[in-house]
Amino acid sequence: MKILLIGASGTIGQAVENALSARHQVVRVGRTKGEFQVDIASADSIKRLFERAAPFDAVVCAAGAARFAALEKLKDEDFAFSVTNKLMGQVNIVRYGMDRINDRGSFTLTSGVLAGEPMPGSATISLVNAGLEGFVRAAALELPRAIRVNVVSPPWVSETLQSMGKDPAAGMPAQQVAAAYVAVVEGQQTGQVLNARDFKPK
Amino acid sequence: MKILLIGASGTIGQAVENALSARHQVVRVGRTKGEFQVDIASADSIKRLFERAAPFDAVVCAAGAARFAALEKLKDEDFAFSVTNKLMGQVNIVRYGMDRINDRGSFTLTSGVLAGEPMPGSATISLVNAGLEGFVRAAALELPRAIRVNVVSPPWVSETLQSMGKDPAAGMPAQQVAAAYVAVVEGQQTGQVLNARDFKPK
Repeated sequence: MKILLIGASGTIGQAVENALSARHQVVRVGRTKGEFQVDIASADSIKRLFERAAPFDAVVCAAGAARFAALEKLKDEDFAFSVTNKLMGQVNIVRYGMDRINDRGSFTLTSGVLAGEPMPGSATISLVNAGLEGFVRAAALELPRAIRVNVVSPPWVSETLQSMGKDPAAGMPAQQVAAAYVAVVEGQQTGQVLNARDFKPK
Repeated sequence: MKILLIGASGTIGQAVENALSARHQVVRVGRTKGEFQVDIASADSIKRLFERAAPFDAVVCAAGAARFAALEKLKDEDFAFSVTNKLMGQVNIVRYGMDRINDRGSFTLTSGVLAGEPMPGSATISLVNAGLEGFVRAAALELPRAIRVNVVSPPWVSETLQSMGKDPAAGMPAQQVAAAYVAVVEGQQTGQVLNARDFKPK
């Protein structure tokens, strides 16, 4: 398969590339790096990406920013930024990619454990992740030509925790998170929220 | 309790007023009707409402619009409208009401069964409802002064189905849906998504 990997240079993105590249053609897409560039907060940027990168069999998105801050500190702009970027950015990858992707293609998006397991400071991220999961469950019912859409929900990633000066053992190694993306890209499911904790690397 | 009921003239709102008004002071709020007016799509309008209506012990929101249409027909504007109105409108009721509401006050918002049980055409509404539920679970962890926030998830309402020319028996009567709002306003829970199917009128 020819797979567009958006967010290829991120912690999860690199692990997904490592896991997929042995059996597939992985096209690296980033905001500033990679073979193609995209700003997922811009619908026009997404449209241009798909025009230039077509044809393709799968899109994996491991990109998307959202703000983490105490509820009383969050501003209107923090919600707008998060909704425009991680939520509508990934929704628009499906909306603007569904006419371009090959038959039986798949979209695999990224939410996160805070959707259902919140913590203080996660109000915007919990909103964004849960909203994306709601969209995926619904959109899967309407995609034509056997196109699939799913969302992987990663826990905290060990490498991310380490870069924050926290205990990496409290998270899951990126390689293990990547196993969920591989399973869904190569699988048959659609409309699913895949908890990365349920997958093991092969 | 003095309860601000936003969306008081709607099908659910009227039933909630009937159920609450025997034991509480219900202040009717609507977009054009009621003792106070608010456009929940406008943060400024929400701020003005709370300034004028304070003090109050509870806010119930049974208002919020979102677009229902086939995925391929949904436009950027349909998502923007739905996010601004039913999703961020209700988020902002909490954000701008949390400094105004009395100690041990409560916010009770409205999502809907399409959050987790989608149907063709529900992509925006499923996104909005699920996102609101994610926000409520998270925000409850941070509200000060024992303030609570919950969201009622109603199924299709019989009276709404009837007005659409469909079988009202496929839905739940508004009076029964209202029982969930009463239970949560008078209860102690917070951060909960209350499925209206689990409640019976007293």
